[in-house]
Amino acid sequence: MKLATLKNGTRDGRLVVVSADLSRCLGAGGAAPTLQAALDDWRAVEPELRALAETLERDASAGEPFGETKCASPLPRAYQWADGSAYVNHVELVRRARGAKMPESFWTDPLMYQGGSDSFLGPRDPIVMPTDEGWGIDMEGEVAVVTGDVPMGVTAEEARGLVRLVMLCNDVSLRGLIPGELAKGFGFFQSKPSSAFSPCAVTPDGLGGAWREGKLHLPLLVGLNGEPFGRADAGTDMTFDFGQLIAHAAKSRPLGAGTIIGSGTVSNRMEGGPGKPIAEGGVGYSCLAEIRMIETIEGGAPKTPFLRFGDAVSIEMTDADGRSIFGRIAQQVRRAG
Amino acid sequence: MKLATLKNGTRDGRLVVVSADLSRCLGAGGAAPTLQAALDDWRAVEPELRALAETLERDASAGEPFGETKCASPLPRAYQWADGSAYVNHVELVRRARGAKMPESFWTDPLMYQGGSDSFLGPRDPIVMPTDEGWGIDMEGEVAVVTGDVPMGVTAEEARGLVRLVMLCNDVSLRGLIPGELAKGFGFFQSKPSSAFSPCAVTPDGLGGAWREGKLHLPLLVGLNGEPFGRADAGTDMTFDFGQLIAHAAKSRPLGAGTIIGSGTVSNRMEGGPGKPIAEGGVGYSCLAEIRMIETIEGGAPKTPFLRFGDAVSIEMTDADGRSIFGRIAQQVRRAG
Repeated sequence: MKLATLKNGTRDGRLVVVSADLSRCLGAGGAAPTLQAALDDWRAVEPELRALAETLERDASAGEPFGETKCASPLPRAYQWADGSAYVNHVELVRRARGAKMPESFWTDPLMYQGGSDSFLGPRDPIVMPTDEGWGIDMEGEVAVVTGDVPMGVTAEEARGLVRLVMLCNDVSLRGLIPGELAKGFGFFQSKPSSAFSPCAVTPDGLGGAWREGKLHLPLLVGLNGEPFGRADAGTDMTFDFGQLIAHAAKSRPLGAGTIIGSGTVSNRMEGGPGKPIAEGGVGYSCLAEIRMIETIEGGAPKTPFLRFGDAVSIEMTDADGRSIFGRIAQQVRRAG
Repeated sequence: MKLATLKNGTRDGRLVVVSADLSRCLGAGGAAPTLQAALDDWRAVEPELRALAETLERDASAGEPFGETKCASPLPRAYQWADGSAYVNHVELVRRARGAKMPESFWTDPLMYQGGSDSFLGPRDPIVMPTDEGWGIDMEGEVAVVTGDVPMGVTAEEARGLVRLVMLCNDVSLRGLIPGELAKGFGFFQSKPSSAFSPCAVTPDGLGGAWREGKLHLPLLVGLNGEPFGRADAGTDMTFDFGQLIAHAAKSRPLGAGTIIGSGTVSNRMEGGPGKPIAEGGVGYSCLAEIRMIETIEGGAPKTPFLRFGDAVSIEMTDADGRSIFGRIAQQVRRAG
């Protein structure tokens, strides 16, 4: 089952059920007005939403045309956004780019930061910034899950059963602000502006065999200004699965329904090394920081600039037949005001 | 005007307007069912809430009895909880207790972390933990504000005008988990379990002259197991006012209505030094970490233990006549399960 939120001038938008091929949708207002309302009462609402999804698949004339450009993020705002860094390969590369060493414990103890969740961008909304000088605007292509209510102290195995929905994410990062913030010791804040999520959120069963062991085993297609930039497999080199990430988040407190947990930037190793651009036969990258780090190692300095006003980023995932699963995140960087 | 949220079995509770003396309340359902709904549409809803408040003050028989024990936190869950550390004195002491030096920039650049906001505790709810061994359970007495919609890049002066409500907070901290988390560089997560807020949230004009220049100029009364533990003045030694804290939070993104911004642990210096317990003529402390640090300096080791199962913490603020302004946070630490 696929769900989306259409913009309608309200803060939380309007929940719709979307056909598997993303062509049509049916308003879900009779079941739940918003996705948060559905998650708050999932046991009662889910069967009604699934009935709408069945109608869409059975009757090709049912519903209205679905437009990704009309979408807000599935949760336009959420009560929690906790982003892991499960591709430890990425963490190691970014740290090396900053000249910082990575502790060995990072391979066994998940990294996770608390993100801002009050004002997500829609999947086609621009990334609006006051400056593109020095802030180091970067995309981060990720997979994210939405949970039901999670009790404190949940095990990773139990947590896997509490994944309600799966989405893609652009965790926008301001690389130029990160070193200063991390030096202060309180984690990211200004360096992590509003994130954007894919038009559709999909139930795990809607992903078929690609969803297993708490991971999504498909390439994440990242584009930059219309060119393929990354196609790293989200199921490969994911050191911690979503069950482990949720359990980490719930160690000392329960998590409310509608909590979003992110995977961190998807990143694959290549022959034990840091990987290569797509043009050179590699799977490329899901953020600019990685390629800049490799350029620094190879040539002494980064060549690829961070995002400038006018640059366009896309994030998508397709099935075996090349059809978009979640719809496409496609954002342009624009100057504020 | 004072607002509170009564528990009613739903996730967001039921909004009520409370009389200035905290004796009675009137349901606000006709204006807005929940506090978040009121904040989402404040311009339209505020006059209706104020009319209810006037009825309560004019007619001593109006309303139902108000019970602090029936309260959830004013926002039982929120879209954002960003906690500053505006009492730099406190930051310096806690760092010294950890053997860490504080950079000079901390006096000019606010510290702030993104907190979890999906599952706040009610003001009289227990603090439930699986263990009190090694986790270092501590209270942190704070002042917090709730904002309206804040545009990206807001100035501190503009931000002061966007403070909708003021509350007290117990920002529960797990001191034993902090050093390990901060060493990982991503800030607090497991070390900051669910916070609790005061029964009432009060509009700035409801605080009279005590609210000025973006600060609340009254002592924060912290109790431990029935004994006075702290009475530091929240308007003294607050290096950054709430306007500055909000502007810091909004540097690279807008803040959604209902964002909660915390002051950090209230802490006063004394004669240039770290202060003394109330019993020794000082204003005491708003958390255990501070007194433990001073004990360490004076005697080589801390004497005051962190909170154990059964310990009780209270946080309150009274007006010139000794009447409670926000109602009392009063929580006991209990074992999970």
